[in-house]
Amino acid sequence: MKLNEQEREAVYKVIFNRRDVRGEFKPDMIPADVLSRILAAAHHAPSVGFMQPWNFIVVRDPEVKRKVKAGFTVAHDEAAQMFEGEKRESYKSLKLEGITEAPVGICVTCDRTRTGPVVIGRTANPEMDLYSSVCAVQNLWLAARAENLGVGWVSIIHHDALRQALGIPRHIVPIAYLCIGYVSFFHEKPELEKAGWLPRMDIQSLIHYDQWRSDT
Amino acid sequence: MKLNEQEREAVYKVIFNRRDVRGEFKPDMIPADVLSRILAAAHHAPSVGFMQPWNFIVVRDPEVKRKVKAGFTVAHDEAAQMFEGEKRESYKSLKLEGITEAPVGICVTCDRTRTGPVVIGRTANPEMDLYSSVCAVQNLWLAARAENLGVGWVSIIHHDALRQALGIPRHIVPIAYLCIGYVSFFHEKPELEKAGWLPRMDIQSLIHYDQWRSDT
Repeated sequence: MKLNEQEREAVYKVIFNRRDVRGEFKPDMIPADVLSRILAAAHHAPSVGFMQPWNFIVVRDPEVKRKVKAGFTVAHDEAAQMFEGEKRESYKSLKLEGITEAPVGICVTCDRTRTGPVVIGRTANPEMDLYSSVCAVQNLWLAARAENLGVGWVSIIHHDALRQALGIPRHIVPIAYLCIGYVSFFHEKPELEKAGWLPRMDIQSLIHYDQWRSDT
Repeated sequence: MKLNEQEREAVYKVIFNRRDVRGEFKPDMIPADVLSRILAAAHHAPSVGFMQPWNFIVVRDPEVKRKVKAGFTVAHDEAAQMFEGEKRESYKSLKLEGITEAPVGICVTCDRTRTGPVVIGRTANPEMDLYSSVCAVQNLWLAARAENLGVGWVSIIHHDALRQALGIPRHIVPIAYLCIGYVSFFHEKPELEKAGWLPRMDIQSLIHYDQWRSDT
């Protein structure tokens, strides 16, 4: 199936205007059909050996969200201690999650035991199943942006806190906790770039041809 | 920026028609502007703490491709030994890469030292930088599909073989070696599904609400 120029431009629009949303969530409900579509997009990510190792825990219960938020707070306080001086103050001032404000949370996981111990494509690189679940996250994220939904990835939380809040079995690996909802606006640039935390790198400095250059 | 219904449909079209391509590569060159666009898409993936940990090694030299292919062959022979009986024969009959046929290879890597030891969002989950590079792979893959380019992820190769073939320094982690090119056609379904290796799972069995159900 061929895609035309307009379709191509739509895909780039989504890729370049996707943001990690933390502070702009509106409480508006996400319609069931929209939620179904973004989950179907995640389920159609590439997966190593077609193992489809993901599960999706859709969180709407405010009590469950409060538990996730408590897990974030613990990990966030630990993290603040790792930054020195001004960076610590700057870190503390950043809004890094919208767990309780977003109407929906989705935890994407990886079941490393699914389809048995030997998986095509995972033999030399055992991390490939985790990477498949990450691809599902990115599919969901882009589909959500196409639905004009904001998504924020909360990585400042320990696996055990997520397992406890969501009842996730020990053999299942949490990959991402995503906050999802309609937003008052999308930032024009990534917030950490806007805040002067780090600049966008020049892409030319990141590309090598045939061999890694020794000067980078 | 709002996306309209046509743009949304274009994004789903790309997500649902993306394939892992192995056997259908045509030798046609990829124009420089097309290659630039898909690399820019990768560079606009989400990254933890905006660290942009990726590099891209664009491979066009047939000699370099042959070295990558040799690395695949070693890992592929090892893998075949892990499957039993019929599964082994079935495994051996599958076409799993298009390294020498695809006009371009792109190796996506992760520099875990980039931007220093403490990274926002990586404090509780050190794997987050690897996951950022995986998101770059998925952005590139979808952008390529929008350009009517096929992509295949070669994961049956050891990191050291890739490091040696491409001159990648020890502190850099290879994430994916991608084969990229125009294709004679895109399969309607994933090839492993078509070949009866594994079925597409029912998405309803993968979704939980608020808590992981104990029956799965």
